[in-house]
Amino acid sequence: MHAAQLVSYEKDFQIRQVDDPTVTDPHDVIVRVGAAGFCRTDIHLWLGQFDAMQKGAGVDLPFTCGHETAGWVAEVGSGVTHVAVGNAVLLHPLSTCGYCRACRDGDDMHCTAGVFPGVLAPGGFAEYVKTGARAVLPIPEGLEPVDVAPLGDAGLTAYRAVKKALPLAYPGSSTVILGAGGLGHIGIQALRALSQTEIIVVDRSQAALDHATGWGADRAVLAQDDGSHIAEVMELTGGTGAQVVIDYVGEGGAQNDAVGMLAANGVDLLVGYGGTLNVEILTQALFPETSFVGNICGTYNELAELVALARRGAVKLETTTFPLERVNDALHSLNEGRLVGRGVLVPSAS
Amino acid sequence: MHAAQLVSYEKDFQIRQVDDPTVTDPHDVIVRVGAAGFCRTDIHLWLGQFDAMQKGAGVDLPFTCGHETAGWVAEVGSGVTHVAVGNAVLLHPLSTCGYCRACRDGDDMHCTAGVFPGVLAPGGFAEYVKTGARAVLPIPEGLEPVDVAPLGDAGLTAYRAVKKALPLAYPGSSTVILGAGGLGHIGIQALRALSQTEIIVVDRSQAALDHATGWGADRAVLAQDDGSHIAEVMELTGGTGAQVVIDYVGEGGAQNDAVGMLAANGVDLLVGYGGTLNVEILTQALFPETSFVGNICGTYNELAELVALARRGAVKLETTTFPLERVNDALHSLNEGRLVGRGVLVPSAS
Amino acid sequence: MHAAQLVSYEKDFQIRQVDDPTVTDPHDVIVRVGAAGFCRTDIHLWLGQFDAMQKGAGVDLPFTCGHETAGWVAEVGSGVTHVAVGNAVLLHPLSTCGYCRACRDGDDMHCTAGVFPGVLAPGGFAEYVKTGARAVLPIPEGLEPVDVAPLGDAGLTAYRAVKKALPLAYPGSSTVILGAGGLGHIGIQALRALSQTEIIVVDRSQAALDHATGWGADRAVLAQDDGSHIAEVMELTGGTGAQVVIDYVGEGGAQNDAVGMLAANGVDLLVGYGGTLNVEILTQALFPETSFVGNICGTYNELAELVALARRGAVKLETTTFPLERVNDALHSLNEGRLVGRGVLVPSAS
Amino acid sequence: MHAAQLVSYEKDFQIRQVDDPTVTDPHDVIVRVGAAGFCRTDIHLWLGQFDAMQKGAGVDLPFTCGHETAGWVAEVGSGVTHVAVGNAVLLHPLSTCGYCRACRDGDDMHCTAGVFPGVLAPGGFAEYVKTGARAVLPIPEGLEPVDVAPLGDAGLTAYRAVKKALPLAYPGSSTVILGAGGLGHIGIQALRALSQTEIIVVDRSQAALDHATGWGADRAVLAQDDGSHIAEVMELTGGTGAQVVIDYVGEGGAQNDAVGMLAANGVDLLVGYGGTLNVEILTQALFPETSFVGNICGTYNELAELVALARRGAVKLETTTFPLERVNDALHSLNEGRLVGRGVLVPSAS
Repeated sequence: MHAAQLVSYEKDFQIRQVDDPTVTDPHDVIVRVGAAGFCRTDIHLWLGQFDAMQKGAGVDLPFTCGHETAGWVAEVGSGVTHVAVGNAVLLHPLSTCGYCRACRDGDDMHCTAGVFPGVLAPGGFAEYVKTGARAVLPIPEGLEPVDVAPLGDAGLTAYRAVKKALPLAYPGSSTVILGAGGLGHIGIQALRALSQTEIIVVDRSQAALDHATGWGADRAVLAQDDGSHIAEVMELTGGTGAQVVIDYVGEGGAQNDAVGMLAANGVDLLVGYGGTLNVEILTQALFPETSFVGNICGTYNELAELVALARRGAVKLETTTFPLERVNDALHSLNEGRLVGRGVLVPSAS
Repeated sequence: MHAAQLVSYEKDFQIRQVDDPTVTDPHDVIVRVGAAGFCRTDIHLWLGQFDAMQKGAGVDLPFTCGHETAGWVAEVGSGVTHVAVGNAVLLHPLSTCGYCRACRDGDDMHCTAGVFPGVLAPGGFAEYVKTGARAVLPIPEGLEPVDVAPLGDAGLTAYRAVKKALPLAYPGSSTVILGAGGLGHIGIQALRALSQTEIIVVDRSQAALDHATGWGADRAVLAQDDGSHIAEVMELTGGTGAQVVIDYVGEGGAQNDAVGMLAANGVDLLVGYGGTLNVEILTQALFPETSFVGNICGTYNELAELVALARRGAVKLETTTFPLERVNDALHSLNEGRLVGRGVLVPSAS
Repeated sequence: MHAAQLVSYEKDFQIRQVDDPTVTDPHDVIVRVGAAGFCRTDIHLWLGQFDAMQKGAGVDLPFTCGHETAGWVAEVGSGVTHVAVGNAVLLHPLSTCGYCRACRDGDDMHCTAGVFPGVLAPGGFAEYVKTGARAVLPIPEGLEPVDVAPLGDAGLTAYRAVKKALPLAYPGSSTVILGAGGLGHIGIQALRALSQTEIIVVDRSQAALDHATGWGADRAVLAQDDGSHIAEVMELTGGTGAQVVIDYVGEGGAQNDAVGMLAANGVDLLVGYGGTLNVEILTQALFPETSFVGNICGTYNELAELVALARRGAVKLETTTFPLERVNDALHSLNEGRLVGRGVLVPSAS
Repeated sequence: MHAAQLVSYEKDFQIRQVDDPTVTDPHDVIVRVGAAGFCRTDIHLWLGQFDAMQKGAGVDLPFTCGHETAGWVAEVGSGVTHVAVGNAVLLHPLSTCGYCRACRDGDDMHCTAGVFPGVLAPGGFAEYVKTGARAVLPIPEGLEPVDVAPLGDAGLTAYRAVKKALPLAYPGSSTVILGAGGLGHIGIQALRALSQTEIIVVDRSQAALDHATGWGADRAVLAQDDGSHIAEVMELTGGTGAQVVIDYVGEGGAQNDAVGMLAANGVDLLVGYGGTLNVEILTQALFPETSFVGNICGTYNELAELVALARRGAVKLETTTFPLERVNDALHSLNEGRLVGRGVLVPSAS
């Protein structure tokens, strides 16, 4: 089959002929790729930032990226019972064992024996991809692979944070969303669909903010170099601060904005990354009794919930599609900030 | 192999030669039985009370009971990765699929494709039993199959209710346990190990109550035909009622005692069965804002927790062992109320 | 002042001259009534169904009903700090002590020293009413007393049940609402505003169902004498049943419909009353692990949340207003099923 | 009356004659002091570290410290109903309003109108102290003020963190407690009384560790300058890390130890202070999905629970008592590390 492979860091991806994946375990599922999201993490991979992690896991170049995949089941192992050949499916990013305590708690991301196609195993920038049965989610009628592929990682990550926010986002509360980009635009829609909290969106880009009210935000605040957006958020909340901050940025200093915006008992949901969080324990964690909560992707059931939101039209993805062989267009347009919405690769066969 | 089979309702079990179970699915696990608890549900099966349910599931006599089984792994299917031949294991009662929403939530008992050995498939009153990989829990060093078999159902059922009670069983609260029998003696120990709630045990048998304080109860109340034990519980709680009632009886009228013993916002945890619960909605559910909460066995992770409690010595089973061929002694002594603790069958080979 | 008083059961209310309430405790708040909801509970009072409860509390006829009151603060005791004379306020139904464990947990309805104007103390069918400081909720700008009075009891009761439903009403779930009347029309709107669960409304009245989709319901099912609506709900949920039922009816047999409509781990939220709930423990509570959860009004903070929903336009009340002296018109039109929406009494002075 | 006052920072406290406190608000309660804990926060006050905060609140020297007070009710305002003159009481550190959203949620520490005797108002190092009705907790029979005074702050703070830990401290889990000092010795006992988690205590003092197993710890690990105690904790947990860390230290580098000791989904409960927490977001918060949770004292109901634990003998305080006039002995022995257990001042009159 054809695959778009990373052959050398910071060089263009190459379309190469590789072996088709085959069923070697009873839980294996081979999926014919219908759509593969191009994510910022693929840029990190392309830059070689995951090189050490991949080498440590025995993974080397050339490598097939792609961890936001949807398509149709092409072949299943003898232990697979909940999907059949031909089913349209969306892939949860992690293929999990189903036996460890984490799996048995529904905490898929912390499976002690998980396999991560597109990061630590061959991914979805190809005609076919292999994953495990527990990662395969049937897509309901009315949705196509190309509609949902980016929900698998970007969407799921945005949604999990929203879900953790909901108990605090009661009517009359305020919720700050830092970052109205790829994750933010899903997070805002999901939060709007599931709460009546006052949604305050903060971003450095006025263009992004202009979209945010259309996604359901109540207020848009332009982030400033002088940090004055923090005071603006405090004023918008009547001086009390927000009950929750969802930080989809996590770098460039934004990661330390939340402590200035939170009400007592506030929760700072960490999603974006790149930076270091610095917390003065007495004044920033103890007195206000703040929680700082890490997030990584989400569970399979959360992905099913997100697909249900999409099916109801409550969450709509903004995407730009590229034929698989145009992978480098997706790469460069994302890398250079020219990409509108999420990029999605579509193999010719699909 | 030999199995103790129910050939005709209300007749003695017969030791019969049956085919050894074999691996037919990648998730199958064949366990050499080391110990099989004899449970009151086996009496219900023996009496034919599950006949319609079994017939509906295509199960017929002769039938091998036994749903509280522990032993050693004898053979595994190709999809089994977390246990190996020779491992000592305790069986969760339900063999689950790992693919449905319930399984993915850790809610094992509501698997939509579960198999129930000993009730709806051949069980543990035999030399070998077949179950699925997700039902097999490794036993830690220091515990033997015969020590833990009854934890698989009776223990797990008792523990799940305790676990639901804990958030309400804060220091200064009162918890009533109805029934100091097979489940109660585990429930009392577990509740004592995990809380400092005032434990008030109610039973019709003074002998059972005499044991209860040794298991950790603070107070013992003899149930009376005139219902005066309800007033006694109210008095012991200073007139407010208990925060929680765990009803391990569920029949003979006891099922309606809880409403008279509960404080505002109280929870009645239903575990024992046989009766019908009647609730006058306005005065017994709305005004006091009472919850009536059903329980059925428990999850695999809860079973692992219970085994951890046993390993710490925090929960000790009282058992009487019988060689498998003496199955009818176990039956009759339980049925006639002569059995001390839980009965456990041990195949000769073990 | 004038008050509309119940002088004799089942006889028309009388407009009588009574003493103005006065501040006798530091926590007292005297409210000039702007609007007083006429609730079905007032019919129960009128019929004398609460006679024994009232007598037990030393309350006798003539009596001033009215437990859904909004207005303006007229006078406050020396211990009142959060509201001032002239503030527009909505009254939580129960005046609470602030000292008992329930109050300290935010569990207002179970205050051990609560006072209940309109049921166990003079209520809001008058020009002035006395309550306690902790019952007084400031109304935000943009809302008037007449807009919110029925939120104090009917709305709060409907909302609390919705709030308990939310954790189970995840995207992809189904929620059944029994009863599209006074409580149901608020419950449906609140549930729609806070979830994307599939809302299935069941009612005996086609006219009520016709409104329900406008309030946000996805499906409307006509309740039938033969109980066939239960099968219809099962079919609408794809055979699994609903995750939650909110029963705003609670009598006439409807109270026993939920068990046939619930999925595994389902929750039956009891709100309506009049009937007795009968639960066959093994098959209706244990096997499906169902919970039956009582509800009574709600907390002060929940009332504040509901007012926030109203302020956002997410919950709109349908009301018919009557001058206070036309109280009997409200009574009879409600009693005879002619009332559209909630009835609200407005004193002439307001 | 006599009070031990801070007249000049870093100078000995002086016994001075000051006015008796008087009832000026309906909620005031005057308590005759029976015992006043001398806490490390009093050292911070003595050093002037809270000078800016106090000045900002209009508080100046000379000042009466003491925020861990117990005694007997001497006088009450007209709005106080739950205690009477002569009752033995323990004081919650914060006097709360009962009207704000936090109070109504039971979240006492975040009252928007709280008064903090001993820090921002005259405290308990005196014969009498004034507080508010909602801060006054009756002490059950069998306990004396001198037995419980330090529970009011040190105990409550230790307990609240334990309470947050409990849902994660399931049987089979591991919990690390950093610091076996004044808070740690209460935290360990409370955690032992309420869980069967494997308790691993880490401290720089072997003497402190020697006591820890007596309080209920399972393992004691000596903290080392080279950080090797982190690896030791990992080994004790079988390589997975602990489910929870309770950090009673919070400075000197210990505040950054938790991230190396936690399992996936782990929670770092921040209690001790002085340092800054630094979290590399991707690797220390996102990948392991860690939560960092601030804690400040606790709620009134939590204090009641802690007193219930003390009454059952499940938590025992180690104290050294000093007559009030020997306040400087308490100061210097604590400051120089010579104090055994918590210091408690007792006015002569008591």
